[in-house]
Amino acid sequence: MHLPVGFRFAGVVSKIKSRPGARDVTLIVSDSACVAAGVYTTNQIVAAPVVVSRSRTPSNTIRGIVVNSGNANACTGSRGHQDAVEMTKLAAAAIDPTGSLTADQFVVMSTGVIGRFLPMDKVKEGIQAASRELAATEQGFLNACDGILTTDIARKTAERKFKLGANDTHIVGMCKGAGMIGPKMATMLAIIITDAPLDPAQAQRILQAAANKSFNCISVEGHMSTNDSLVMLAAQPTASKPALDGKAELDFAKQLEELAIELAKKIPDDGEGATHLLEIRIAGANTDADADAVARSVALSNLVKTAITGGDPNWGRIVSAAGYAGVPIRPEFTALKINGIPLFDRGEPLPFDATTVSSSIKGAKLTEIDLQVGMGPGKATHWTTDLNTEYVRFNSEYTT
Amino acid sequence: MHLPVGFRFAGVVSKIKSRPGARDVTLIVSDSACVAAGVYTTNQIVAAPVVVSRSRTPSNTIRGIVVNSGNANACTGSRGHQDAVEMTKLAAAAIDPTGSLTADQFVVMSTGVIGRFLPMDKVKEGIQAASRELAATEQGFLNACDGILTTDIARKTAERKFKLGANDTHIVGMCKGAGMIGPKMATMLAIIITDAPLDPAQAQRILQAAANKSFNCISVEGHMSTNDSLVMLAAQPTASKPALDGKAELDFAKQLEELAIELAKKIPDDGEGATHLLEIRIAGANTDADADAVARSVALSNLVKTAITGGDPNWGRIVSAAGYAGVPIRPEFTALKINGIPLFDRGEPLPFDATTVSSSIKGAKLTEIDLQVGMGPGKATHWTTDLNTEYVRFNSEYTT
Repeated sequence: MHLPVGFRFAGVVSKIKSRPGARDVTLIVSDSACVAAGVYTTNQIVAAPVVVSRSRTPSNTIRGIVVNSGNANACTGSRGHQDAVEMTKLAAAAIDPTGSLTADQFVVMSTGVIGRFLPMDKVKEGIQAASRELAATEQGFLNACDGILTTDIARKTAERKFKLGANDTHIVGMCKGAGMIGPKMATMLAIIITDAPLDPAQAQRILQAAANKSFNCISVEGHMSTNDSLVMLAAQPTASKPALDGKAELDFAKQLEELAIELAKKIPDDGEGATHLLEIRIAGANTDADADAVARSVALSNLVKTAITGGDPNWGRIVSAAGYAGVPIRPEFTALKINGIPLFDRGEPLPFDATTVSSSIKGAKLTEIDLQVGMGPGKATHWTTDLNTEYVRFNSEYTT
Repeated sequence: MHLPVGFRFAGVVSKIKSRPGARDVTLIVSDSACVAAGVYTTNQIVAAPVVVSRSRTPSNTIRGIVVNSGNANACTGSRGHQDAVEMTKLAAAAIDPTGSLTADQFVVMSTGVIGRFLPMDKVKEGIQAASRELAATEQGFLNACDGILTTDIARKTAERKFKLGANDTHIVGMCKGAGMIGPKMATMLAIIITDAPLDPAQAQRILQAAANKSFNCISVEGHMSTNDSLVMLAAQPTASKPALDGKAELDFAKQLEELAIELAKKIPDDGEGATHLLEIRIAGANTDADADAVARSVALSNLVKTAITGGDPNWGRIVSAAGYAGVPIRPEFTALKINGIPLFDRGEPLPFDATTVSSSIKGAKLTEIDLQVGMGPGKATHWTTDLNTEYVRFNSEYTT
């Protein structure tokens, strides 16, 4: 891996999670004050760490991110808020025992069970242990990735290395499981680190744009969590390395968007029991926002998701889900392909070989849906899972 | 049963459905021109019979309703439109072979498979057979009810008999399965017949209000179909029986709303494989419309629905679904009860006996969720099903 210059990483076992040996405290530290931007859940029921972090980004005085998994510190009232602030105090003290760092130079994230107070003794030990293990190494980075996971099967990372002018530039990212995917588990968390120099407002703008094309376009079941957070740390601009502008900014934004999409897709790809990843591509809407609404409506339809589980090329479910998305479509120009095979055109069904289409769904993890809803320029792509009995079994087990 | 005076009913077997002996053509006729009002799907992908019926209501010249099940006549283009109009022509001719009735005096509904043309020969024979069997009898009414069903397990009817001033008044209703509940099956259909005298605009207004509290508050999976239709036939006002007004109108509207709710609840109660009916009652929102949005968000959450399947009093899923409904709530006043047992109050979890709550869910078909989201006057109630493996199995079977 090619890590961004100037950052160190650690992930340790502090027994917040019950699973033996599971890393559950992650610390990411910048060697000097860096730039941070954040995009957070818009759920009005919002976890304490989100409230704290949201108030601290964008910023150009951030020194790091502290994360725990196994407990979401959500619906925990004023004590929860104090605990979230305390995590950042503990991180500041652990990084620099001389007391020169302040709590508000840290961003905090939590993920896991809702409605329980954090075991602060374990969290404290974890933060202190992590501070001793910080390293600018691949192993440090991977440990940090593991420390943010909950019910995820696989570790989720992505990286980019490219030149901006004469400068080598690196972006690395990590994320964890989508939405409310597990029993009382909250949260999509994502962290992106780059050594590209950015102004805070610029970082915020570029990150939000990337989120709109990536993390805001995925769903497992569409349940927005109390803890969803995406935070990016970037290098502080200097006289010799000023903030990106012009073509360099555009090139960076493109690299960031691609990395964010790569990371985001890993979330539904790893949904519990998911046998299919659906890529839903909408074209022909009046605007990109309209296309986004149609993609979301199709992605959230249980009838579409169960049809894919069964390998059923059920175009009626897909087309009708577009029809109730709440944005204008033009039924007379509606056209649908599944895995490249045309099933519906100009508002009417086409003859097709159902077995061929069904085999193409059953034979691959990825199912591609191309839906045209008019003649406009609006486009969007969403990713989701199928809906199968394994998902239901997992999410209906008695857990409270 | 107490049928409204002046109407006759029939339901016959015409072999549109493949199941032997299944009634699939229904005819309901008024002895003289009556008043009709209709509420239809807002899906932009809309079936031909909806387009035809929508153009004919409200009206005071309607003579009847013709329905087929087994084929939705949806996504069938201009031929589908001609077929829908032809059904009303056939009904008019069958009722009065002298040719004094016109096609536009009939409303038409279809439900069943999407994207196939109607077998018009069978439809024609069915309409003619039904016209010969029309009867103002309970058996006629029940046959008519059976003729509109598709994958429904149970026949769904409701009735009211009451006095408006000195006049005996009757309302009867029938409906069939919710939304897109079966493989490629479309449609919620509902028909309400009353001998109360109403003006067309008044009938439309009262029917829409009742729909907003009933059929618009139910979901199985929230997939709005191409064919959803609710039509009411009412008596023509006369000099001796003028249109209801004042208290009589209010009394009638209340009776109608209660009947509509009774009918509507039967739909999720009969959802394929559903083991639970969820009644989701929202209070404390700023407005009724806001409460409605919160109720819908909770009702459509797969995580809420799977939790109920598992008998899991998972308050985090319910409260967080309210938080992303897109309308303002006040987290600090949020409170939740399941089956009357308080789990969450003023934004924080309460201690509760999980086994007691779980047993209360597992021990009954009905689960009652009371969620307060603020201190406002807004209220709403929705009904939905749980989400279990049987639903997924049913909807993922290969069917195209």
